[in-house]
Amino acid sequence: MSDSVYKVVELVGSSDVSWEEAAKNAVETAGKSLKNLRIAEINKLDMVIEDGKVASYRARVSLSFKYEHDK
Amino acid sequence: MSDSVYKVVELVGSSDVSWEEAAKNAVETAGKSLKNLRIAEINKLDMVIEDGKVASYRARVSLSFKYEHDK
Amino acid sequence: MSDSVYKVVELVGSSDVSWEEAAKNAVETAGKSLKNLRIAEINKLDMVIEDGKVASYRARVSLSFKYEHDK
Amino acid sequence: MSDSVYKVVELVGSSDVSWEEAAKNAVETAGKSLKNLRIAEINKLDMVIEDGKVASYRARVSLSFKYEHDK
Amino acid sequence: MSDSVYKVVELVGSSDVSWEEAAKNAVETAGKSLKNLRIAEINKLDMVIEDGKVASYRARVSLSFKYEHDK
Amino acid sequence: MSDSVYKVVELVGSSDVSWEEAAKNAVETAGKSLKNLRIAEINKLDMVIEDGKVASYRARVSLSFKYEHDK
Amino acid sequence: MSDSVYKVVELVGSSDVSWEEAAKNAVETAGKSLKNLRIAEINKLDMVIEDGKVASYRARVSLSFKYEHDK
Amino acid sequence: MSDSVYKVVELVGSSDVSWEEAAKNAVETAGKSLKNLRIAEINKLDMVIEDGKVASYRARVSLSFKYEHDK
Amino acid sequence: MSDSVYKVVELVGSSDVSWEEAAKNAVETAGKSLKNLRIAEINKLDMVIEDGKVASYRARVSLSFKYEHDK
Amino acid sequence: MSDSVYKVVELVGSSDVSWEEAAKNAVETAGKSLKNLRIAEINKLDMVIEDGKVASYRARVSLSFKYEHDK
Amino acid sequence: MSDSVYKVVELVGSSDVSWEEAAKNAVETAGKSLKNLRIAEINKLDMVIEDGKVASYRARVSLSFKYEHDK
Amino acid sequence: MSDSVYKVVELVGSSDVSWEEAAKNAVETAGKSLKNLRIAEINKLDMVIEDGKVASYRARVSLSFKYEHDK
Repeated sequence: MSDSVYKVVELVGSSDVSWEEAAKNAVETAGKSLKNLRIAEINKLDMVIEDGKVASYRARVSLSFKYEHDK
Repeated sequence: MSDSVYKVVELVGSSDVSWEEAAKNAVETAGKSLKNLRIAEINKLDMVIEDGKVASYRARVSLSFKYEHDK
Repeated sequence: MSDSVYKVVELVGSSDVSWEEAAKNAVETAGKSLKNLRIAEINKLDMVIEDGKVASYRARVSLSFKYEHDK
Repeated sequence: MSDSVYKVVELVGSSDVSWEEAAKNAVETAGKSLKNLRIAEINKLDMVIEDGKVASYRARVSLSFKYEHDK
Repeated sequence: MSDSVYKVVELVGSSDVSWEEAAKNAVETAGKSLKNLRIAEINKLDMVIEDGKVASYRARVSLSFKYEHDK
Repeated sequence: MSDSVYKVVELVGSSDVSWEEAAKNAVETAGKSLKNLRIAEINKLDMVIEDGKVASYRARVSLSFKYEHDK
Repeated sequence: MSDSVYKVVELVGSSDVSWEEAAKNAVETAGKSLKNLRIAEINKLDMVIEDGKVASYRARVSLSFKYEHDK
Repeated sequence: MSDSVYKVVELVGSSDVSWEEAAKNAVETAGKSLKNLRIAEINKLDMVIEDGKVASYRARVSLSFKYEHDK
Repeated sequence: MSDSVYKVVELVGSSDVSWEEAAKNAVETAGKSLKNLRIAEINKLDMVIEDGKVASYRARVSLSFKYEHDK
Repeated sequence: MSDSVYKVVELVGSSDVSWEEAAKNAVETAGKSLKNLRIAEINKLDMVIEDGKVASYRARVSLSFKYEHDK
Repeated sequence: MSDSVYKVVELVGSSDVSWEEAAKNAVETAGKSLKNLRIAEINKLDMVIEDGKVASYRARVSLSFKYEHDK
Repeated sequence: MSDSVYKVVELVGSSDVSWEEAAKNAVETAGKSLKNLRIAEINKLDMVIEDGKVASYRARVSLSFKYEHDK
């Protein structure tokens, strides 16, 4: 695996069900265009509140994937 | 929205089901007396353990809401 | 000054001009009801964006003031 | 204990003797009006200096206690 | 409780369902050999990705338990 | 808003007037090609010095915007 | 000293007198079974509160000592 | 230099020789498509281990370069 | 530039106008005796409050400059 | 890989040649008794100085490996 | 107080009695040559261990004092 | 060793070969005028890039040494 280069991008996914769903949405949306995703680290969790209730769960996620030269 | 002032308070909610429930308990308890809650950020997650088993999930949450002069 | 107790609260001020105005709004709104404010530390600066332009500057501020027993 | 909600407040106590006394002053002042205090975490220690000597020790403390709806 | 000594260890649990399950696996595996577990703090959450999908949720957990002299 | 995915990018703007101008330059340059910018968080402020004078103010800014599949 | 390997463990000591006593309890309990302890760093200080009073001071301590192969 | 805007990207390089080589691989791979690279900050160093031996050194690097409007 | 050594010092500047002025005061005061100042990083921003109003803005700044052997 | 549990230990290795050697010493010493080591993260780098010269390079390393019940 | 400039230095004091004594030693040693010391912040506490016992308490302290042009 | 006071200074060394050389340059330059240097901690590593290549490695280092009253 030596000498390959990976890029790290940060995405925010959201879900009205759970942080697992929010993070999964971010990963799977990215998975449509990015190859060789390996690990997704959670940087931050929060919630959007409307009318005193939790409206959605959000997860900020760092994703690493194989770097292609055209960025 | 300019010139309005928000206050941030920190609450700890707990649940025997999930961190989502724990955080939601904190938000909805606060929602009974605080107006204009917007965003709730998760500062810390932990678990209480009893007899070697997880007894409850806890979430420490920062909540911002519109500031009223009497604090 | 020994033996007195201070409380720290966190406020978010905003302004469409500058972070200095945003922080000042937070301090002076609090100053109407809290006595003996001393130091205000900046914890976070951000901006709200609308239509690709900066709509307001926001400052999250920790304020310490003399603690009264009724919280 | 599940489903109860706690609030976290931050106080600064001071003492001319030690940080233990400074933190204890913060806790016991709060204990007069807040119920069910459990844990007090130390966030910061510093000293006030006068004429090149330590005039007082200060401890910034996070205190959690049972949340009542009227804040 | 004074004068007892606790040790803190760090474990990583994983689950293909949720971070709650991942953390619970770490706690309950540890609970088979460690006595008097009290609190488990979450230090980090991440996900393993395979073929553009979330394959497992992982939780890095700090566990404290009563210290016995033979480590 | 649930289920949409946002991307976070980090830019550094500069200005010889103020950090507000520096941050605004970063946001408005980005606003020419990125849609649905919402919040811009300040990660770092610094200054470039020439001949013992401040030559420019710089702001490092995290910007979130709606994620499109082609990255 | 080159080429030797040290291990770092984290302990929590407590005392009803002071954080110095709490940290010392952790160190001296460990010193009964671990050889070549050198430095103990304080990672966290807190207090347990009972009936609105400080019941004990606790210190979380990282201890390094010479590593033996059987862990 | 005032008023120009830079973008920051995060890459992970690896090498079976050293962290200097790992970081250099990340920089020089990026240098093929990005113009005006200036500074590369190291955010994290780690190692991949196989069969109890170090198989590769990895460096996570933040790179800033001149921002072009098409991102 | 290789092989030269820089020293980093930390100053706190203040101004009753803005944080830019506060930081500039720190830099330009230092610039009278230190040669080859390059970059000044902001470590902390705060405000001194008097009578419920902002009396001055303060900026804590890290300055690097060419190291001379006599310290 | 789901449902397996890993333990994280922290070691400090040293070398009079480089941080790579220091970290490798920590990993390979651990590799004699621990199975399934995967990733070693660098937490801290420092140097021991003697007579104004660098006497050794040290690396503090977090190592994760498969958890066995007897700790 | 506006427009004055302060410098921050970092000292490590030690004592075989307590961290208060250790910090006080650092402050009072500095107080012999530095004027207008105001606040001393604690950055780190640790202990030196000899023969399995605490040999001394150490406090790393940031001290701010009025800046004079000759550094 | 009790009761002696140490000062901590921060230097940035650079080298076109490695971070070890960069840090060593900082330490040995300081060693010409400072007595009793003990430990040098690495605070930050970065690289200067020219023409898409690594031009130099830089290490920011905290050095502690025996404090003399004239600073």
